[in-house]
Amino acid sequence: MLVKYYSDMLSKKSAIRNLFDFGRSRAEEIGKDNVFDFSIGNPSVPVPDSFNESLKKFADYKDGTLVHGYSPTLGIQSVKEAIAASLNRRFGEDYTADHIFMTTGAAGALAHALRAVCEAGSSVMVFAPFFPEYVPYITGAGCIPKIVPPRMEDFQIDFEKFSEMLDESVSAVMINSPNNPSGVMYSEDTIKKLCAILSDAEKKFSHPIYLISDEPYREILFGGIRYPYVSKLYDDTIVCYSFSKSLSIPGERIGYVAVDPRAKDAELLVPVMGQISRFTGHNCPPSIIQLAVAENLEVTSDMSVYERNAEILYEELTRLGFRCVRPDGTFYMFPEAPGGNSEELSERAKKHDLLLVPGTTFGCPGNFRISYCVETEKVIRSLDSFGKLAKEIF
Amino acid sequence: MLVKYYSDMLSKKSAIRNLFDFGRSRAEEIGKDNVFDFSIGNPSVPVPDSFNESLKKFADYKDGTLVHGYSPTLGIQSVKEAIAASLNRRFGEDYTADHIFMTTGAAGALAHALRAVCEAGSSVMVFAPFFPEYVPYITGAGCIPKIVPPRMEDFQIDFEKFSEMLDESVSAVMINSPNNPSGVMYSEDTIKKLCAILSDAEKKFSHPIYLISDEPYREILFGGIRYPYVSKLYDDTIVCYSFSKSLSIPGERIGYVAVDPRAKDAELLVPVMGQISRFTGHNCPPSIIQLAVAENLEVTSDMSVYERNAEILYEELTRLGFRCVRPDGTFYMFPEAPGGNSEELSERAKKHDLLLVPGTTFGCPGNFRISYCVETEKVIRSLDSFGKLAKEIF
Repeated sequence: MLVKYYSDMLSKKSAIRNLFDFGRSRAEEIGKDNVFDFSIGNPSVPVPDSFNESLKKFADYKDGTLVHGYSPTLGIQSVKEAIAASLNRRFGEDYTADHIFMTTGAAGALAHALRAVCEAGSSVMVFAPFFPEYVPYITGAGCIPKIVPPRMEDFQIDFEKFSEMLDESVSAVMINSPNNPSGVMYSEDTIKKLCAILSDAEKKFSHPIYLISDEPYREILFGGIRYPYVSKLYDDTIVCYSFSKSLSIPGERIGYVAVDPRAKDAELLVPVMGQISRFTGHNCPPSIIQLAVAENLEVTSDMSVYERNAEILYEELTRLGFRCVRPDGTFYMFPEAPGGNSEELSERAKKHDLLLVPGTTFGCPGNFRISYCVETEKVIRSLDSFGKLAKEIF
Repeated sequence: MLVKYYSDMLSKKSAIRNLFDFGRSRAEEIGKDNVFDFSIGNPSVPVPDSFNESLKKFADYKDGTLVHGYSPTLGIQSVKEAIAASLNRRFGEDYTADHIFMTTGAAGALAHALRAVCEAGSSVMVFAPFFPEYVPYITGAGCIPKIVPPRMEDFQIDFEKFSEMLDESVSAVMINSPNNPSGVMYSEDTIKKLCAILSDAEKKFSHPIYLISDEPYREILFGGIRYPYVSKLYDDTIVCYSFSKSLSIPGERIGYVAVDPRAKDAELLVPVMGQISRFTGHNCPPSIIQLAVAENLEVTSDMSVYERNAEILYEELTRLGFRCVRPDGTFYMFPEAPGGNSEELSERAKKHDLLLVPGTTFGCPGNFRISYCVETEKVIRSLDSFGKLAKEIF
């Protein structure tokens, strides 16, 4: 018999899925170029040549069993060593290979990190706006999500609400900065204050509270700003990373967990994640992809397109009267829906062939997400549609 | 705090792991060539060139976002279509792409199939000898494994015991044929009888009992024998496949689930598995690996080495006095440990630099597994050590 819990989910068609279907049928009518699809977070800038060269080199290896053979459950040792060395060099950390667990993208990283440190029944705190898949990752680990409401004016943390909600039941706190969907990066002040509160809470409740830092957008920052390395500021930090955005390879599902060497039980966490993978059927990521990323750890795609798109859209949207927090990075921005109903705005936008995702699933129903990982030429052509939309609503 | 359930597992070091450590330290002393490691099931025959050529072709694609971009959660449509067409052509099935769910190897396939059709608390039947990871897959889905004892004389099914144990609590039955660790294939009679009993039980208990058929060794059969396509003989069949063995690419973690079109809720099962993957952090397998296997669906590595190794070992071991069911395929055989204690035999064998896995974890403590995915030359050199071992014990 089909398991009811999962089959019931099928009837709930997601907003993004609805937009996708609309976009496809409109593309058939008016051509793909005339549909302004800002709904999908699929990197659009080219994959670095060096990544493909690495893949080809390994595909050419004479002894294929070395390349295509089983990876150890925790990841290929040389790959883990290379990642630790790169993080140490860039961020002054002191990881060894034993602190790195190779995963199939950030999804695998987050799911394993949560299962490792959050006993079933404990709470996991998340700050709105947040990536909606955090909820199944948390409930899949048997835990309860506690959503801290957003600080709308700048999408930093509302510490008053956070402190109110932080109780003994909390085993982990998840952050995602630079953020999907807001594009905002937590400032150093925000991170430091967060870490101070968590340190106090650990003492007060006499148990560790792990900070799970989801950082797939770490390399996509505008105007030369840099994101502090959270793990340096709080011992019980578990960094979850994916190469999806930095190398434009989201389909290759490759990422890792990096456990801070000073974290409680640091030396056990990675082996424990290995045990967890036996239950989820996850296993380690593909060998050839592990080997290829290890040769491209400090390479990124050319991200300047995203910055240019952000500028164009931010300038025009604010000129038109939309209120929006300026993105610090990523390829998202998260303006307010005038009137506060983003579902209605998303419907209205469809009439102008603009696909915009309502903020409801991100925990902010009054905002909408624009994913501007599209060609700049298309962004410019879309401004006319944004103008028409603005005329209707202001 | 580290989750106790998983961290407790770390103290239980597996028999295979112990052998691995012993093998490594002996290799340092006497050289790798002189350690006869029959413990690991890592394919040793070359990866077909055509697979590597496909990989390189896709790595060379001009628009990398087409190759390295997100795959849909259920898998790339063209890949699923190609797999359905190949299965239909080879086995007279009538799958469509909608019946195929792409997974990271057989592990991902089994974990998702179980979660889809087995409500937490139901039982899942497994026949000894069995792949030990079935237990965490089953308990990870919240279910209870029911192990049917082996029929030692031929490793077919003990139907008397099976029928006794098959009760209303059973939601699924798992089979693995050709089998790891026995190398034995279920005969057509065995499969037909199993299906008949399951059909009767479905009527008696008024709920479906899914047959989860784990078939990674389908292509490794000796003497031209062929394994019947189980799905043709029982409607509620879910086939779990991995390309690990047929293409010698276990590290690339690529496989699929194929739901029989006549199965109960056939049209919902694949979408349900998509929902399940949101909770496990599994996601779809890497795009470039999906695309490359789709071009190599009916290609296999040269498996004749395994057949040759099987013959050499079977002839010599039975000549020496070991009792062993002749393997039909795979790269395993599963002789009896004289005296019935396979742990003791494995210890004894180490003295002759033979690494043999005790059958305890496979549910048959009186047998031991030989994995002969090694060079034939090494198999021949190992016979002397088997001879010395036999002299000691007979």
